[in-house]
Amino acid sequence: MTDKLSAADLWGGGHFADAQAPLMERLNASIDFDKLLWRHDLAGSRAHAAMLGAQGIITAEDLAAIRSGLDQIEQEIERGTLAFTPEREDIHLNIEARLIELVGEPGRRLHTARSRNDQVATDLKLYVRDAIDRADAMLVDLLAVLVGRAEEEAATAMPGFTHLQAAQPVTLGHHLLAYAEMFGRDRNRLADARRRLNECPLGAAALAGTSFPIDRKKTAQALGFDRPTANSLDSVSDRDFALDYLAAAAIAAVHLSRLAEELVLWSTPQFGFVRMAESFSTGSSIMPQKRNPDAAELLRGKAGRAFGNLQALLTTMKGLPLSYSKDMQEDKEPIFDAVTTLELGLEGAVGMLRGVTFDRARLASAAGVGFTTATDLADWLVRVLGLPFRSAHAVAGKAVRAAEERGCDLEQLPLASLQAIEPRINESVFEVLGVDRSLASRTSYGGTAPALVQAAARTARSRLLEPS
Amino acid sequence: MTDKLSAADLWGGGHFADAQAPLMERLNASIDFDKLLWRHDLAGSRAHAAMLGAQGIITAEDLAAIRSGLDQIEQEIERGTLAFTPEREDIHLNIEARLIELVGEPGRRLHTARSRNDQVATDLKLYVRDAIDRADAMLVDLLAVLVGRAEEEAATAMPGFTHLQAAQPVTLGHHLLAYAEMFGRDRNRLADARRRLNECPLGAAALAGTSFPIDRKKTAQALGFDRPTANSLDSVSDRDFALDYLAAAAIAAVHLSRLAEELVLWSTPQFGFVRMAESFSTGSSIMPQKRNPDAAELLRGKAGRAFGNLQALLTTMKGLPLSYSKDMQEDKEPIFDAVTTLELGLEGAVGMLRGVTFDRARLASAAGVGFTTATDLADWLVRVLGLPFRSAHAVAGKAVRAAEERGCDLEQLPLASLQAIEPRINESVFEVLGVDRSLASRTSYGGTAPALVQAAARTARSRLLEPS
Amino acid sequence: MTDKLSAADLWGGGHFADAQAPLMERLNASIDFDKLLWRHDLAGSRAHAAMLGAQGIITAEDLAAIRSGLDQIEQEIERGTLAFTPEREDIHLNIEARLIELVGEPGRRLHTARSRNDQVATDLKLYVRDAIDRADAMLVDLLAVLVGRAEEEAATAMPGFTHLQAAQPVTLGHHLLAYAEMFGRDRNRLADARRRLNECPLGAAALAGTSFPIDRKKTAQALGFDRPTANSLDSVSDRDFALDYLAAAAIAAVHLSRLAEELVLWSTPQFGFVRMAESFSTGSSIMPQKRNPDAAELLRGKAGRAFGNLQALLTTMKGLPLSYSKDMQEDKEPIFDAVTTLELGLEGAVGMLRGVTFDRARLASAAGVGFTTATDLADWLVRVLGLPFRSAHAVAGKAVRAAEERGCDLEQLPLASLQAIEPRINESVFEVLGVDRSLASRTSYGGTAPALVQAAARTARSRLLEPS
Amino acid sequence: MTDKLSAADLWGGGHFADAQAPLMERLNASIDFDKLLWRHDLAGSRAHAAMLGAQGIITAEDLAAIRSGLDQIEQEIERGTLAFTPEREDIHLNIEARLIELVGEPGRRLHTARSRNDQVATDLKLYVRDAIDRADAMLVDLLAVLVGRAEEEAATAMPGFTHLQAAQPVTLGHHLLAYAEMFGRDRNRLADARRRLNECPLGAAALAGTSFPIDRKKTAQALGFDRPTANSLDSVSDRDFALDYLAAAAIAAVHLSRLAEELVLWSTPQFGFVRMAESFSTGSSIMPQKRNPDAAELLRGKAGRAFGNLQALLTTMKGLPLSYSKDMQEDKEPIFDAVTTLELGLEGAVGMLRGVTFDRARLASAAGVGFTTATDLADWLVRVLGLPFRSAHAVAGKAVRAAEERGCDLEQLPLASLQAIEPRINESVFEVLGVDRSLASRTSYGGTAPALVQAAARTARSRLLEPS
Repeated sequence: MTDKLSAADLWGGGHFADAQAPLMERLNASIDFDKLLWRHDLAGSRAHAAMLGAQGIITAEDLAAIRSGLDQIEQEIERGTLAFTPEREDIHLNIEARLIELVGEPGRRLHTARSRNDQVATDLKLYVRDAIDRADAMLVDLLAVLVGRAEEEAATAMPGFTHLQAAQPVTLGHHLLAYAEMFGRDRNRLADARRRLNECPLGAAALAGTSFPIDRKKTAQALGFDRPTANSLDSVSDRDFALDYLAAAAIAAVHLSRLAEELVLWSTPQFGFVRMAESFSTGSSIMPQKRNPDAAELLRGKAGRAFGNLQALLTTMKGLPLSYSKDMQEDKEPIFDAVTTLELGLEGAVGMLRGVTFDRARLASAAGVGFTTATDLADWLVRVLGLPFRSAHAVAGKAVRAAEERGCDLEQLPLASLQAIEPRINESVFEVLGVDRSLASRTSYGGTAPALVQAAARTARSRLLEPS
Repeated sequence: MTDKLSAADLWGGGHFADAQAPLMERLNASIDFDKLLWRHDLAGSRAHAAMLGAQGIITAEDLAAIRSGLDQIEQEIERGTLAFTPEREDIHLNIEARLIELVGEPGRRLHTARSRNDQVATDLKLYVRDAIDRADAMLVDLLAVLVGRAEEEAATAMPGFTHLQAAQPVTLGHHLLAYAEMFGRDRNRLADARRRLNECPLGAAALAGTSFPIDRKKTAQALGFDRPTANSLDSVSDRDFALDYLAAAAIAAVHLSRLAEELVLWSTPQFGFVRMAESFSTGSSIMPQKRNPDAAELLRGKAGRAFGNLQALLTTMKGLPLSYSKDMQEDKEPIFDAVTTLELGLEGAVGMLRGVTFDRARLASAAGVGFTTATDLADWLVRVLGLPFRSAHAVAGKAVRAAEERGCDLEQLPLASLQAIEPRINESVFEVLGVDRSLASRTSYGGTAPALVQAAARTARSRLLEPS
Repeated sequence: MTDKLSAADLWGGGHFADAQAPLMERLNASIDFDKLLWRHDLAGSRAHAAMLGAQGIITAEDLAAIRSGLDQIEQEIERGTLAFTPEREDIHLNIEARLIELVGEPGRRLHTARSRNDQVATDLKLYVRDAIDRADAMLVDLLAVLVGRAEEEAATAMPGFTHLQAAQPVTLGHHLLAYAEMFGRDRNRLADARRRLNECPLGAAALAGTSFPIDRKKTAQALGFDRPTANSLDSVSDRDFALDYLAAAAIAAVHLSRLAEELVLWSTPQFGFVRMAESFSTGSSIMPQKRNPDAAELLRGKAGRAFGNLQALLTTMKGLPLSYSKDMQEDKEPIFDAVTTLELGLEGAVGMLRGVTFDRARLASAAGVGFTTATDLADWLVRVLGLPFRSAHAVAGKAVRAAEERGCDLEQLPLASLQAIEPRINESVFEVLGVDRSLASRTSYGGTAPALVQAAARTARSRLLEPS
Repeated sequence: MTDKLSAADLWGGGHFADAQAPLMERLNASIDFDKLLWRHDLAGSRAHAAMLGAQGIITAEDLAAIRSGLDQIEQEIERGTLAFTPEREDIHLNIEARLIELVGEPGRRLHTARSRNDQVATDLKLYVRDAIDRADAMLVDLLAVLVGRAEEEAATAMPGFTHLQAAQPVTLGHHLLAYAEMFGRDRNRLADARRRLNECPLGAAALAGTSFPIDRKKTAQALGFDRPTANSLDSVSDRDFALDYLAAAAIAAVHLSRLAEELVLWSTPQFGFVRMAESFSTGSSIMPQKRNPDAAELLRGKAGRAFGNLQALLTTMKGLPLSYSKDMQEDKEPIFDAVTTLELGLEGAVGMLRGVTFDRARLASAAGVGFTTATDLADWLVRVLGLPFRSAHAVAGKAVRAAEERGCDLEQLPLASLQAIEPRINESVFEVLGVDRSLASRTSYGGTAPALVQAAARTARSRLLEPS
């Protein structure tokens, strides 16, 4: 028996493989994309082989041969000397066939008590788990940048927007820490996904388990899983872990797109709040002042593929009867694309935030435009004069109209004008009408008072940046 | 000042409200759907008022008046005597305006140190948290039914499918427990969403916090939250908790659609594995034997809206600058629809599984069709004769072809025929070729051996059904 | 036999209906939403009855009785006196059962040679066709407003943006006509959908056609269809027409969201290009100058549900075997919601554009900021000095840098400065550096020269506004 | 000046390019995927250059040099000798920079009166138009196979399903022609998309048109467009044509997934209606009888990516202000993937349908199972005895129950049993109770009578297969 194998030799399609349409190969072969899984496939095979050896299902000699073959394959792939072929369909059969070429009969024993169904589920889980760990590390980087810049800008006044209209002054540090909350939740969501993922399907075999005396706890442990999966049918049918990742990536993409939108807006001449670093912009020899915020636009635009990948796999999984169906081969490309997209997005956000220059003067001057301390006036009326809030609200409204008519700011209104609206108003009201006083007064937990923002950044450093 | 208030009186739009287009009211008013939040709005207002009282921001008398007004509103809504109006836009203003009608000036003090922005975030979080708790309870019901039926069918043989082709025998109990794993993960996913949600936005006010000496921990605690949110801008901008619920509902919909698909397939005359209860079927006077599995079809079809709701809110949130934007009013209907859909789906699954009759004879007879014990033969060749698995695989293939040519089952093949393929095969091979022996042999952890399935059901009862 | 009928009496489920779970009624009954189809159901029944009469399948007396019964039902529904009930499941059975109550035996003959399957397909097609016609009329309104305002602003200078950075001057009229192109394509897309939809399923019966001598061309014609559908199985399985509408609505939602985004941006104080009408804004008594662009935000946000509805029905239809499956009952709510959303969006856009005030002074002054005529300089270098474009590009870039360093506009640069960069530059270059000259020079077909924009608006009036 | 150019030299970013982050290159460069557009880019450049020459904007010598340079580039790309580099960002700059390397100064004149914005819109339209034409040709192939097989099976009885329950007999040819209707609509939808797409953006330049005396009609004509686009801003902002393609591909994916689902079901042993060709199956050496319908499963599963790609681009385009934003670079990959997916799907369907073997005996025997002629009995009662349909329905129901109790088919019921239900029933009723008579009676337009199906196939051949 030759050791030059096609996939059909392994899955036994030899008796009709020559009839296989070239089109079918294009449809069916996944090696072009699932080769990304090669490290995980080797890891899974090593753990499986070690367990087979320990359980006496294969001999120590067979195990040694398999190990040395897998080592050599690892080197070949790293050096780029192993040519993957679509005749061997996927990464799993490419590696197994190569192993048999290299070590002969022992290689034929590796697949004992295993099936491609549990193998591919294991490999993909390992891949997604690595992706979660990488994303977590990138989120930590991003949080570190956000928190660091927030500390620098803890007292930088800027307009707080609702409806993209200036509403009340806030500090830029406070604004940046809002994103820290979002990306902190992303870490949390990924950690949950990781915990839920972390059960090992290996040993579920094709779908029913096996009659060999395998030790699934051993392979689970060797591969860093918390435990083996509890049901063999579910083990090969489940792609929840992929959906969990895709959902987390889609929600993170929402966050990135919001940050990106703000950077695009803020870098317009009209806003002028920021200047993007050259390294994350593109320019034009015609308009050298122009710095197109390309990186931010791309981050915003990439929300599309993040949502699309999630929808793709949800759709594919919809209505699939148990257990493994070939439709599930469509799980990989959305995952791979989502991983690339999320990682580019997170790295891009780190890069942009590191390099962005904030124009504190423009931010501060915008903070006071639009009577943004009117709420402070209303609160003063409640606190000092005892007006019901809804009535204070109305009085403040009249004051703003008066200021608008005079073309002045609230704090420039003569006391008499204010007293014409509400006679009990006195000089002390002016203490609350400046942007700085407004900021300093927002001392409720989670509020924008600079001292709180400074403290919040410190807390965020330990709370959001802790190792997972 | 009259106490007959429109929303514009409250948010101060009175000076241009008469110009408001009727179309704008249709666009803008959300009372038609957000009235669902009335209980949560009352709860939030009670906690807020109590805190304002405790902090001395309002007097004990004001607090008492507000409480009695809110109590009366609760009764009016329960009795259906409070007419909500679009002029008052949403549930929040409908309730506040009614409160002012009922108790006058104290009612005008309720909104002190609060804004609709933090109020609506709080209400929706409370609503989603309740929905999570209800879904969890329904999942427990569903798991109880699945586990119960799995115990009954722990030893019922049926074909295990891959590619919807019979592959190896499994037991029906094992198959049902695969769904228990899925729904167990759904509980887990919802519990994670709940934990991540459970921070209270109340007190973030419009976006920046407030200058009143509020105690956000007190309101958080009163409303059952673990803590207040850490950043006021994020508090009013964040809808992650809604996305988390929608993602969990979409993944649960995948599970329900898979179960539903199987029930549809299995109730065809061609499969004939189940008979759906009359109470979950529709019939026809023309074909009274016909039981259309409508409930199952609807559960399968409803995956569409589950995915659509998730995409809807992801899309709406994409690229929104901070903090609150009106776009976010589009959060509620996808959530409400997702809640209805998930709950109908879970209840429907419970009902269907309770009432379904399994045709054990047909299941068992299908279990052996298609040489489903060929893997057992291969495993025997490995275990007893020491063949490498890939070679054993090839031998088993030849045996099946021999059986196919004779038109018999594998276990009916004469020993001589088997020995013509592999001379070392002996009588003892027949011990592994029956369905029952095959089932009994699958004793690897998570495998389908009836004894394991029985035990797995017991374990599932404690593992998956524990109170959250 | 009593004429008090439940749905089960009609579809014959009487023998097991009392076992029907209340939950099943909630799952199964569609009357709460499909009652929207009542007019279309009556139209379909009238056409069907008339054909049955004309073909002699029912008598003239039966036909007369049915007609009078349907007339009465129409009045009852219009007056709100006919109570729909979930026991009768859907609008079709509610009407048929009421007809039998009213006219007795002739009512029992209406359903001859018809099934709910072809009936519901016909009703929904009629509904969607009406929705297309309404949307088309609204698009004509919207185009009329756009073209009208474009004519007014044909010569109003504003910055043309790429990457939301000012790039070259354009006119506001030109910008508005870009939206006219989008909405013109929407009309076109809907017209295609209508043409493709316009085949009548009535007469396909349950799925196979009928043995009665019906005349499908007659009913098709009576209902305004171009022809009957060609295949009875497809007739009851097809929901392409719904998907076509949903796709058209989703693409129109993209257009509306882009317009809405610009109105939100342009109404910020930072841009200040527009002032939204009070009737499409909400305000605040505290900040009376604040006009939150709620209508625009809602239009932008509603893109979410438009996309979600499309994904929902695509998902539901995925993988459904022929012919009718109950999953398809999930077609209606996405359609109904999409219709409401699209119509609100189009009406909202009309209202906003009618009422918006453009700040021509700010638009014009922004048009020249950012060296937006640098391209004109480059073009002059090519045209007058014969430089290759890429080289001219580089020269213009140096000129802008020189202007930036001097802190002046391009047209304020001394000739000597320009000659220091490219000695052949002469006085005549200044003719192309002003915004007005730049605008006037863009005379290529489809360009922004005011005269062209004026002409384009005239053409658009006939090209895009023609009756469909 | 060297002719060794990076993208930054061309777009003028040279003054800050060395600062460009490697990450930014990964984010920004699109050459890895947009190289697919190389033929379209060359075509666009040739048409543009020819027009520039004809209008005297460049000299005949420059034109000749550009042409020869583009010819050489074409050869280099075809031979694989032109290395694309990410430093040159995209296909457009890679080609232009290579042109300048090859022909020097004339190459620098090619971009006169053009911008990447109109260039990329033109290239992508040309690409999509080609994709539409290829898909149309593949749909014609698929329709030819469907119609051909339908003719062969025009009289082959099979059960017609509703709710996946046998309802009435139909013919297999009729069933196949239902798919011909779907794919016929797909052709129609693509033709509409093509017509709407077919306006040429070239000459819109960056966004505003140009001051050069270009002739956009000439380039439009040279590139096979019907006319130039009417508005320059829309020309560079519009991606409707991509969305139209994606929507058409998603709806076609619904059709393919339905066909695929049926092939998966029908190839189960339980149904046994078809045997998939070996060339579109995978097998197993263990279960050589097993033919996993992988191709069908993949076609079904690929609906996921088809829907995901549509959602991706809708999301990306949502809320983008005019005109070009970098987000729009995210248009290409969804399109490219959708094209691959649709083409694989259509070719796969052709291959599967060509090779599938129908088991006529099983189909026919299933056609009569389940009292599928009960409707024929009801129709007979209406037609012959004059019963109202709803009453006839009830009588037929009783007859079926009687047959069910006797364990016989409807046509095996003694006349006396029928008369016990309805005394006027006579011998002639048996004429309608056989499957063949039932089929033959369904002669309403679009019905399943074999003669009609035969004729319908003929008509379909001319109606659906006409060249577009």
